[in-house]
Amino acid sequence: MVMKLTLREIAEHIGGKVIGDPETEVCGLGSLDDAVEGQIVFLANPKLAGKVAQSKATAVILPPGAEGFGKNVIETKNPYLAFAKVLTLFLETKSQPKTVMAGAFVSPEAVLGADVTVYPGAYVGERARIGDRVVIHPGAVVYEDAVIGDDTVIHANVSIRERCRIGKRVILHNGVVIGSDGFGYAPDGKSYYKIPQIGIVVIEDDVEVGANTTIDRAALDKTIIGRGSKIDNLVQIAHNVVVGENTVMAAQVGVAGSTKIGRNVTVGGQVAFAGHVTVADNTMLGGRTGVTSSITEAGIYSGLPAIPHKDWLRSSIIFTRLPEMRSSLTALEKRIKELEGLLSERGANDA
Amino acid sequence: MVMKLTLREIAEHIGGKVIGDPETEVCGLGSLDDAVEGQIVFLANPKLAGKVAQSKATAVILPPGAEGFGKNVIETKNPYLAFAKVLTLFLETKSQPKTVMAGAFVSPEAVLGADVTVYPGAYVGERARIGDRVVIHPGAVVYEDAVIGDDTVIHANVSIRERCRIGKRVILHNGVVIGSDGFGYAPDGKSYYKIPQIGIVVIEDDVEVGANTTIDRAALDKTIIGRGSKIDNLVQIAHNVVVGENTVMAAQVGVAGSTKIGRNVTVGGQVAFAGHVTVADNTMLGGRTGVTSSITEAGIYSGLPAIPHKDWLRSSIIFTRLPEMRSSLTALEKRIKELEGLLSERGANDA
Amino acid sequence: MVMKLTLREIAEHIGGKVIGDPETEVCGLGSLDDAVEGQIVFLANPKLAGKVAQSKATAVILPPGAEGFGKNVIETKNPYLAFAKVLTLFLETKSQPKTVMAGAFVSPEAVLGADVTVYPGAYVGERARIGDRVVIHPGAVVYEDAVIGDDTVIHANVSIRERCRIGKRVILHNGVVIGSDGFGYAPDGKSYYKIPQIGIVVIEDDVEVGANTTIDRAALDKTIIGRGSKIDNLVQIAHNVVVGENTVMAAQVGVAGSTKIGRNVTVGGQVAFAGHVTVADNTMLGGRTGVTSSITEAGIYSGLPAIPHKDWLRSSIIFTRLPEMRSSLTALEKRIKELEGLLSERGANDA
Repeated sequence: MVMKLTLREIAEHIGGKVIGDPETEVCGLGSLDDAVEGQIVFLANPKLAGKVAQSKATAVILPPGAEGFGKNVIETKNPYLAFAKVLTLFLETKSQPKTVMAGAFVSPEAVLGADVTVYPGAYVGERARIGDRVVIHPGAVVYEDAVIGDDTVIHANVSIRERCRIGKRVILHNGVVIGSDGFGYAPDGKSYYKIPQIGIVVIEDDVEVGANTTIDRAALDKTIIGRGSKIDNLVQIAHNVVVGENTVMAAQVGVAGSTKIGRNVTVGGQVAFAGHVTVADNTMLGGRTGVTSSITEAGIYSGLPAIPHKDWLRSSIIFTRLPEMRSSLTALEKRIKELEGLLSERGANDA
Repeated sequence: MVMKLTLREIAEHIGGKVIGDPETEVCGLGSLDDAVEGQIVFLANPKLAGKVAQSKATAVILPPGAEGFGKNVIETKNPYLAFAKVLTLFLETKSQPKTVMAGAFVSPEAVLGADVTVYPGAYVGERARIGDRVVIHPGAVVYEDAVIGDDTVIHANVSIRERCRIGKRVILHNGVVIGSDGFGYAPDGKSYYKIPQIGIVVIEDDVEVGANTTIDRAALDKTIIGRGSKIDNLVQIAHNVVVGENTVMAAQVGVAGSTKIGRNVTVGGQVAFAGHVTVADNTMLGGRTGVTSSITEAGIYSGLPAIPHKDWLRSSIIFTRLPEMRSSLTALEKRIKELEGLLSERGANDA
Repeated sequence: MVMKLTLREIAEHIGGKVIGDPETEVCGLGSLDDAVEGQIVFLANPKLAGKVAQSKATAVILPPGAEGFGKNVIETKNPYLAFAKVLTLFLETKSQPKTVMAGAFVSPEAVLGADVTVYPGAYVGERARIGDRVVIHPGAVVYEDAVIGDDTVIHANVSIRERCRIGKRVILHNGVVIGSDGFGYAPDGKSYYKIPQIGIVVIEDDVEVGANTTIDRAALDKTIIGRGSKIDNLVQIAHNVVVGENTVMAAQVGVAGSTKIGRNVTVGGQVAFAGHVTVADNTMLGGRTGVTSSITEAGIYSGLPAIPHKDWLRSSIIFTRLPEMRSSLTALEKRIKELEGLLSERGANDA
């Protein structure tokens, strides 16, 4: 069965305007290069406008004023966002069993909302509270007293430790660990004495956490991931860290303990944050930046230590030419010595 | 039910001395900023002494000689360590079922000690030997012939591969992998031939391994993590690596094959070790250091390649000023050319 | 029971030539340092030839022409490869149950080949197709419509997401995640709108993937790991990435979206690739290289940004001497100022 939507329906969904026949039907999305008849495509980059003309697509989502080359058009300010929304519209999400399946373990003391799915091999501990329509995939483990909000998806082999709190519409990808012990020890001169980590992790609503990412519980209080933030795979968030709302972190980022990252921050891959630093709202950090002290002013930063990105770029280029630079320096030294020699000679002659 | 302890009991536990009323009861720990009546706090940083005066806490753990501001005091040399011990004292650890629960799989050939807990969805393979009071959480998998010492905790979704040996009082956090194959291939000119990895991993007593950390089995012999060492999340330990006792590694560290790291080494986050190098006891490595050759003398190192930390700091600061430095160099070149021109002119005039 | 093989049998298996008694039996492999009588050793590094003389081994695998010191010898061009093959020959692999064990969950709609083993706690979803002799360890989860080729091994706690395709003779180590959602969002000015990731991951034949490595599904199309490639632990492969055949990646590498890495590429640990770049076949990348733009010519590269390894080495060494270099520069400035002063003085005198 193929799903079909009219341009009118799509335009209503994305808040766009049809130019052409609003009753034209499309049955899916294509890319500018490969689309076939019956599909809808989008143009985000004006440089690729020429491809619209050549595309076999039935309709195209364009920014206002862009040339439609005779195709049916839906005009909208943000074609990329519109594309994402149309893709969601066409998405056939799997219908879930909405039940605790045989082979799942759910503590009799756990509290489950309506239409919850718990797959075989999943585990829900004592007094855990699971919101409506939550899906807990096979092998996912929810420890005692954890709380999970409505419509959240917990993928296979995720671990959510005791008392941690996960918001609504959160997605935890496979292998994510929420609430493992923070890394805290008191040295006693000979060895390390473990400091009990009795705090929790709070994941606010609409957060997505990538595969195998780890978020440690606070020592006493809370590690917090703010509403709407998106965290990629294999990221490490240490104890007592606070990440603001709508902050985005690419893969393999590491955040040391007690660091506070603001809202709308964009963090490139493999970036590291030292502990106990603060990063201003709206900051952007290039890949592999090392944030060793607080960033109080929004801007684009790179390098270890982090400096303004433009400065880092210039220093990096000069770094690749250090051998040249050293040669120049050596040559100058020689020339100066010659000048000095010459002058001292003439000085002697003059005398 | 609230747990209460007298200052006398606490002082005995931590080896401290009460100044004030030893029969005063406290019911928990607080922080210098937020403590309420009935709580005990600690002061580790003398700069914060003023906060003791303002705190509502009933008692305070202080280093010898520090001002108590009229509060009940427990004096001890290492208040931070004492705090950790008191926290442990107040900790109400979950009482475990001490049984193989329904939904767990334990091979009939496995050997279990006394009071072992195996949660639903956990797996214990053939001939595995599990010590007394071990807790194996849901989804944890112990392959055949693995050995686990007394009082060890294996969290959910941990994998312990065949024949590996885990000591006593070890904590493996969620998603840890012990004994995956080392990364060894013999190129045959066209492709890579897998070298069987038939060694094991040995985790000694009192080690803690952070979430999603991976420790590969040796090719022929043993990968070893020494007694009391603490390894944070998402760390990679390759085959045949030996980590000494009481060594601490922060998150996302990578250690390549056959490298030997000494005792009491402190390793910052994202540090990388090349293969086949040796690192001296008591070495400290700053975050993201790249150890490309052996470190034979203890000290603090940073950078890639690793150099003494102070030198690296100085070079790093100059790195951020390379554009200036290049401008200076260019300016000098111009000035020398002018001097040379002047001299050659005057030389000509003189002649 | 000890397995014994004659030198003739071994020589036939590895394509070598016996010098000595072909009916001599050996019962295992040893290392040059520790071998005992009855074992066979190998010499790959000519510098260690002296150890052959001292070894108690019964036989030795040597490159053509190397001195055998009176021992039985098998001559072969690539002793290291031969060693790997002999190791495989002696390897006693565990015999698998070749059945769906009690406590495993296999969807009635899944299709299983001959002699498949599914351990307790493993999960195989609807319409998944599992090839002959595949082994699925405890806690491994295969989502609906995934496809797994013959003789592939899926270790404990692996997750294979919906519709992904795994080739033949693939090994996925513990905790691997195949097909988690790519990291794609369309900003709507306030927050991030999730772009559905409806593509898949294709892992071709003979690939090995290390523990806790994550490989994201494509947005629309395919993320591909080419035949024979070997990927170490904790590596991140983002959506739409294509890795060519027989490429090797060490641990903790990160590859951003849509990047294309060629064949026979060798990637050191912690290397990062920016998105949308291309890397030529046969390229070698030193540890922690940052590939920020395409590499069109094979060679050895290092640094961030990546430059030829030799240049990077030179720049790195100068980096460690930047303080000296700055002092030289300052000294030169002073000397030039003196010369200028001197000249202007003399100029004045002359005038």
